[in-house]
Amino acid sequence: MSLIVTGTIGIDTVETPSARRERVLGGSAAFFAAAACPFTPVRLVGVVGGDWPSEHRALLEGLRGVDLRGLETRPQGKTFAWGGRYLENMNVRETLFTDLGVVGEAAPTVPGVFADSEFVFLGNTHPSVQRGLLTQLPKRKVAIADTMDLWINIAHDELMKLLCEVDGIVLNDSEASLLTGVRNAVTAGQRILGYGPRFVVVKKGEHGAVLVHRDGVAAVPAYPATEEMVIDPTGAGDSFAGGMMGHLARMGVGTGSSEFQTLQDALTWGTVMASFTIGGFSLEGLREASPDAIAKRHASFRAAARIA
Amino acid sequence: MSLIVTGTIGIDTVETPSARRERVLGGSAAFFAAAACPFTPVRLVGVVGGDWPSEHRALLEGLRGVDLRGLETRPQGKTFAWGGRYLENMNVRETLFTDLGVVGEAAPTVPGVFADSEFVFLGNTHPSVQRGLLTQLPKRKVAIADTMDLWINIAHDELMKLLCEVDGIVLNDSEASLLTGVRNAVTAGQRILGYGPRFVVVKKGEHGAVLVHRDGVAAVPAYPATEEMVIDPTGAGDSFAGGMMGHLARMGVGTGSSEFQTLQDALTWGTVMASFTIGGFSLEGLREASPDAIAKRHASFRAAARIA
Repeated sequence: MSLIVTGTIGIDTVETPSARRERVLGGSAAFFAAAACPFTPVRLVGVVGGDWPSEHRALLEGLRGVDLRGLETRPQGKTFAWGGRYLENMNVRETLFTDLGVVGEAAPTVPGVFADSEFVFLGNTHPSVQRGLLTQLPKRKVAIADTMDLWINIAHDELMKLLCEVDGIVLNDSEASLLTGVRNAVTAGQRILGYGPRFVVVKKGEHGAVLVHRDGVAAVPAYPATEEMVIDPTGAGDSFAGGMMGHLARMGVGTGSSEFQTLQDALTWGTVMASFTIGGFSLEGLREASPDAIAKRHASFRAAARIA
Repeated sequence: MSLIVTGTIGIDTVETPSARRERVLGGSAAFFAAAACPFTPVRLVGVVGGDWPSEHRALLEGLRGVDLRGLETRPQGKTFAWGGRYLENMNVRETLFTDLGVVGEAAPTVPGVFADSEFVFLGNTHPSVQRGLLTQLPKRKVAIADTMDLWINIAHDELMKLLCEVDGIVLNDSEASLLTGVRNAVTAGQRILGYGPRFVVVKKGEHGAVLVHRDGVAAVPAYPATEEMVIDPTGAGDSFAGGMMGHLARMGVGTGSSEFQTLQDALTWGTVMASFTIGGFSLEGLREASPDAIAKRHASFRAAARIA
């Protein structure tokens, strides 16, 4: 079924303890689309400026099954740019700069050809923008939003309205705690269910993720990556969401097994796709994710996380 | 097969944000034995003082299948006592006092009737004491040691010798990092394999555990407990080890499926037993762990952590 993602396309500058990359392709929609497209075609809605490098466009165009008709270019504007530095063996991330550029201007619109999209991922942005995008997608069957601490702090009321309009939300454990005042991830997720959505995915980075659904709770460890396997964690969360929703859209929730079980499986595919992302800068890690490599990584993860 | 545990029997005073218990039964050997005895008979080696409350003895005697012939009483001595306080919703623990008492004196000896023990768990104590106990167990098939930051810091050379003599070691993620200088749990585990043991279990508390074995790597999430389910985390790690080794001894590693797979399953049983421990003070949570309740909790955990 049709999957649409709205989010940022960015120019990232990333420093790790051992390397540095300047002005590489990044942004939530880029990672999401690259992680989801092996599962199902992806429609991308976003906006870039006149400075967007043609190599970045070529990279996105090179992703099989990603429809860029919703990618708007504003020639007078600047592309969203982000700089970050990883410290202490990738555990701590420091943001060095954030230039919103065109992302700080008018929101992109959903092109008419995408209006019939059934699976919707609202990448992290101001919740009022997310709500505006949602109204342009009247055929949606499952809508999931991402959010962050900034919106919890400065746009709490709009976020609470959004939570009544989506089916699910993904957020980090620290963000779930901030939103609910509860540190325990399961209880925080249950509180958020009380705000409206049918399910919550709490991401815990290297410690995996927890799904809190009206019908049950699931826990998944992260892929047990060695230090050598972690080149750059940027985009891991967005890739997790991409793999997760790619699987959901592929399976078509509601047909066959229960939504809870399909989501539980989807967390596994999200974990697998995130494990590719951390293996390189920008989309380099995901470039290795051929259907065969994805199947092998999934089998390896299933063996490592098997519960007899 | 026969399982023996050496470790502390303690008198615990525990404060949580909502409750306080004074002078309740604690200690690594007590939690280990209570968690292991539903799986297999347990032989306990430890030492208490003349002040040991008769109610505590009655509690241990009430555990089915725990053989206390290795529990020595030193009438002139004082029982090991520990006081701790949990802060920030159970996330942070502060030690208020530690009175070693008889644990700081001569080590207990393994009684002759226990000398043929095959599965050995060396609870956390000075590594030279652990090594001395190990020499009294010449029939051992699988020996696993626990350790802590204190011994890594002040008895590093003895600990390294111990690591050459045991089959496996269990330790926290922060301890694995301290021992190896590596923050990544999988890579830290791999480094420790280089020091001698065949496998390492890195415990991550509420984030689960990782098994690093010569034959592979496994990851298990923690039981997805709600805030309400966590009454007192004291003893969770020892109960994890108890459930794990109880399963190993019950299965008899080396017969049937591979050691790696048996250990992987053992991590699941450890997780289940730890989930009982956190549900009450002292051994109160484990008292609910009837064979039927254990089977139900395991089924619930398997459903929550299922990888399709």
